[in-house]
Amino acid sequence: MTARNFPADTIGRQLAAIFAAWGMPEAIARPTVEVMVETDLSGIDSHGIAMMPLYAEQRAEGRWVAAPEIRIVRETAVTGLIDGGHGLGHAPSVRAIGMAIEKAKASGLAAIGVRNSNHYGAAGIYALRAAERGLIGVATTNVWKASVVPTRSRKAMFGTNPIAFAAPAGRNPPFVLDMATSTVAIGKLTVAKLNQKPIPEGWAVDDTGRPTIDPVTALKHRLLSPLGGIPGMSSHKGYGLAAMVEILSAMLPGAFYAPTRERHHPGTRHYNVGHFFLAIDPGAFRDPAEFCAEIDDMIDALHGAVPVDKGLPVLVPGDPEHTARALRQASGVPIPASLLAQIKEIARAAGAPFLLE
Amino acid sequence: MTARNFPADTIGRQLAAIFAAWGMPEAIARPTVEVMVETDLSGIDSHGIAMMPLYAEQRAEGRWVAAPEIRIVRETAVTGLIDGGHGLGHAPSVRAIGMAIEKAKASGLAAIGVRNSNHYGAAGIYALRAAERGLIGVATTNVWKASVVPTRSRKAMFGTNPIAFAAPAGRNPPFVLDMATSTVAIGKLTVAKLNQKPIPEGWAVDDTGRPTIDPVTALKHRLLSPLGGIPGMSSHKGYGLAAMVEILSAMLPGAFYAPTRERHHPGTRHYNVGHFFLAIDPGAFRDPAEFCAEIDDMIDALHGAVPVDKGLPVLVPGDPEHTARALRQASGVPIPASLLAQIKEIARAAGAPFLLE
Repeated sequence: MTARNFPADTIGRQLAAIFAAWGMPEAIARPTVEVMVETDLSGIDSHGIAMMPLYAEQRAEGRWVAAPEIRIVRETAVTGLIDGGHGLGHAPSVRAIGMAIEKAKASGLAAIGVRNSNHYGAAGIYALRAAERGLIGVATTNVWKASVVPTRSRKAMFGTNPIAFAAPAGRNPPFVLDMATSTVAIGKLTVAKLNQKPIPEGWAVDDTGRPTIDPVTALKHRLLSPLGGIPGMSSHKGYGLAAMVEILSAMLPGAFYAPTRERHHPGTRHYNVGHFFLAIDPGAFRDPAEFCAEIDDMIDALHGAVPVDKGLPVLVPGDPEHTARALRQASGVPIPASLLAQIKEIARAAGAPFLLE
Repeated sequence: MTARNFPADTIGRQLAAIFAAWGMPEAIARPTVEVMVETDLSGIDSHGIAMMPLYAEQRAEGRWVAAPEIRIVRETAVTGLIDGGHGLGHAPSVRAIGMAIEKAKASGLAAIGVRNSNHYGAAGIYALRAAERGLIGVATTNVWKASVVPTRSRKAMFGTNPIAFAAPAGRNPPFVLDMATSTVAIGKLTVAKLNQKPIPEGWAVDDTGRPTIDPVTALKHRLLSPLGGIPGMSSHKGYGLAAMVEILSAMLPGAFYAPTRERHHPGTRHYNVGHFFLAIDPGAFRDPAEFCAEIDDMIDALHGAVPVDKGLPVLVPGDPEHTARALRQASGVPIPASLLAQIKEIARAAGAPFLLE
């Protein structure tokens, strides 16, 4: 697949042009673009500009609105609930993690929920913002569509419900874990199908709930296995984590649980996706410099741990993103030709200029 | 293996008698016994009275003290740091989750760290206490000994670092997830060896870091795989979760990271294990009755999800423990003959009466 590189700034201007043409106010477009560009810079290609075709499709269906009223519904010194007004998830989430950071700086920790939202991009971007301010950051989200099948079941009951967790270090870049609670994402099935390769037992199940190793069958049903993969490998743990993320992201702020949405809210166009953010100030517990030094000690020990293969050193969560960021800030973000064609069509249909020639 | 059933109360008196003979003050023994008995009642056989042989061994080595000074080192409206004084972990942890609950009831959420502690039993017991009071509860702990090997490595760098998460429901018992971040615990290797059965690829690695299916080799090296099992099944996620638990439980409260303990604190007898507790009041975000009703909705949907095998309905995290508790409250806790013999010897050596005849 051919790809061309573009400076992050150009990608940002392209996204802003399309959002403006869709009627998104600048105050909402700015944080949205910021998060999406940061995501592409970090090498998380699936969650940045590559989301635009889906955003365009969902916009056409009336799933989200370009000019939402984002408002704080409830607030205390250490908690907050934000209503996203049925817009995309990035803007209310930037506000939420910002609030969590300010409150945690003042009080030691804070949790903010977001409801009436939509896809918010990569969870790790929000958690990292807390770590960049010297705090532990947590970000989770539920998903509007169930694709993950609980252990023992044959029905999808959760989205890929990611958990992101970040912590600051001293001389090292921050620790950033950003993981779906499924074993893999749908994208991996697509790659296996393209390469005509079987998939490992435990990535996906067929419609009887049994593991399949055929990527065509897997893509037909789109039924993913929770982390662990199969019961004998403790898939009940990945299932449990997915449910935990659902409770924090949907039940706590008052978002919809996808499997019962139609029953409880028949005919609703809006997905009412929910997010959860937590920030903790290590300084409330101990000297923050000592905290960071001990994170460094752990990161260094992990980097120095004897590898199975000398050519593949042990990585610390966040390493691939930090590496990608350095590389792409210098040489741009690669965008595949097929995605460029889609962005061009989206821009044309919106009446926005196409800037990625 | 023959086993005999004992009322929880009798087990509690046996534990109390041994702790008293070891010189543990009643104020510390009471919560310790309470947690251990609750653990056995919940069917978590590995973490209740079955821990006594290890506790006795570690006591003989001077790893923990029977009469610790447990003190609050730092405290704000929503945070706290407790020093366990190098005793067993149960008593400071009961105090910590109690503090987290009181503070969360008053302020919406709270986080408490514990340092200079030891094994605290099953993490889920503490998280459940928050759920029983209408709150979301989280409990994590690190471990004094590394047994889990990061993806790409051949060296153990984390303990089985469990995550427990509990949330209240309405008509259903609480949701309680309590999981080690390794694929399985050492105990499963022992069972496979006893049964002379191969283990699945992804439970454990040999000393070159490659997955082994031989339980004898696995038990020789005691090198567990993180949840996911192997790189192709996303073991890097289980590894990331183990590191997350280490940061919350060790770096945040100031406990020791096992792989570098000897280097930084040569010759130290005490392990300085750490724990982390978080409580969140759903009432700070929305009507708590609505929150509980939506947890019920999710639990009911999961119980009703079409199963692969009609004889094996879908379980919700916490179900096995709730079932065991009802059964064992009626008919007692089974204790295997081999463990009874060990308890008898521990009691004899301590000069305590043996009450499990």
